[in-house]
Amino acid sequence: MFLCDIGNTSYHFLKDEIDYKEDVNSFNPSEIKEKIYYICVNKKIKHILKNLENWIDLSQKIDMSKYYKTMGIDRIVASMAVTNGVIVDAGSAITVDVVKNGEFLGGFIYPGKRAMSKTYKDISPALDYEFNFDIDLNVLPKNSIDAISYGFLKTLQNEVLSYEMPIILTGGDAKEFKKIFVDAKVDENLIFSSMKNISTLFGK
Amino acid sequence: MFLCDIGNTSYHFLKDEIDYKEDVNSFNPSEIKEKIYYICVNKKIKHILKNLENWIDLSQKIDMSKYYKTMGIDRIVASMAVTNGVIVDAGSAITVDVVKNGEFLGGFIYPGKRAMSKTYKDISPALDYEFNFDIDLNVLPKNSIDAISYGFLKTLQNEVLSYEMPIILTGGDAKEFKKIFVDAKVDENLIFSSMKNISTLFGK
Repeated sequence: MFLCDIGNTSYHFLKDEIDYKEDVNSFNPSEIKEKIYYICVNKKIKHILKNLENWIDLSQKIDMSKYYKTMGIDRIVASMAVTNGVIVDAGSAITVDVVKNGEFLGGFIYPGKRAMSKTYKDISPALDYEFNFDIDLNVLPKNSIDAISYGFLKTLQNEVLSYEMPIILTGGDAKEFKKIFVDAKVDENLIFSSMKNISTLFGK
Repeated sequence: MFLCDIGNTSYHFLKDEIDYKEDVNSFNPSEIKEKIYYICVNKKIKHILKNLENWIDLSQKIDMSKYYKTMGIDRIVASMAVTNGVIVDAGSAITVDVVKNGEFLGGFIYPGKRAMSKTYKDISPALDYEFNFDIDLNVLPKNSIDAISYGFLKTLQNEVLSYEMPIILTGGDAKEFKKIFVDAKVDENLIFSSMKNISTLFGK
């Protein structure tokens, strides 16, 4: 089984239980000759893949009516894997989606760690710091690093915890965010597991 | 009385109760020949003003020991004007500072509306929207505009309301943020009022 989850910045492959990434700007998908199941949020690449017969778009088999029209397919696929919980997918964006009794209730989009760090730096060179994930979010900050770390992390934490539901952390930065969602379950393969399930709908 | 609050993007003047702005990249401060009291968070401009005798730095008269070393002087001056409350200064950054019984308890920094909008756009062209300040923040979003608006606004609202203190809104975007902080008092001249108070310490 060969799977690929294509985001805004990279192709994320899973082949024989080993995952690896390729840059969207440099990788040529026609290099792959085998049958490969994919999902893709990247418009430009979606267009290229349409012309490659061995690349099979999993979204064909998904009932989109349960979600909303412009919702990223990665969020939909992740939501399909959960019956009750909040899915926090921490990548270039952080998507937060809530599923209750198998029903998608809605979700929101927050900037990822790298994007947010650049935002602060662009506002002022005085805010050019790496975020402190070890910050104590129960105390109001009294220094600049913590002032931006708290602004980025506490606001997100507050909102996610307010749902009082199990939290599932996935995405490239999942392990780092585990520091502020201590009770969360980290499942870096949530999307791939869900993709595997969906691929069975295609038959052999 | 001639006052100037210098930020990362503009000089904000108050003269005879009329306020106006000049761009930090194009305005030449030596054009002003009168005595003018200022505060400045912009390192480059601070350096220029040191050599202009009629520009008087209000920070000389402030007891900095109550605050922290790298804290922006605008946040300090705003905090000095409040005895009990949360000050939300919505400009190119949004600073949130908490003062209780005249004591500064700490605060955090969140990106301003324009900076955050650019962040989402840079993550993906599919997220290139203006924020919806009329969003119902009590319902989880099911469309892209609301998904980013909620990500930006609900997380901030949640945190600020959690202090259960009076909210004072100031800064260029104060009126817009009043939509999500409905009980807040808008005081666009909070910093100038505080600067006036501090200027009396200089004598005539």
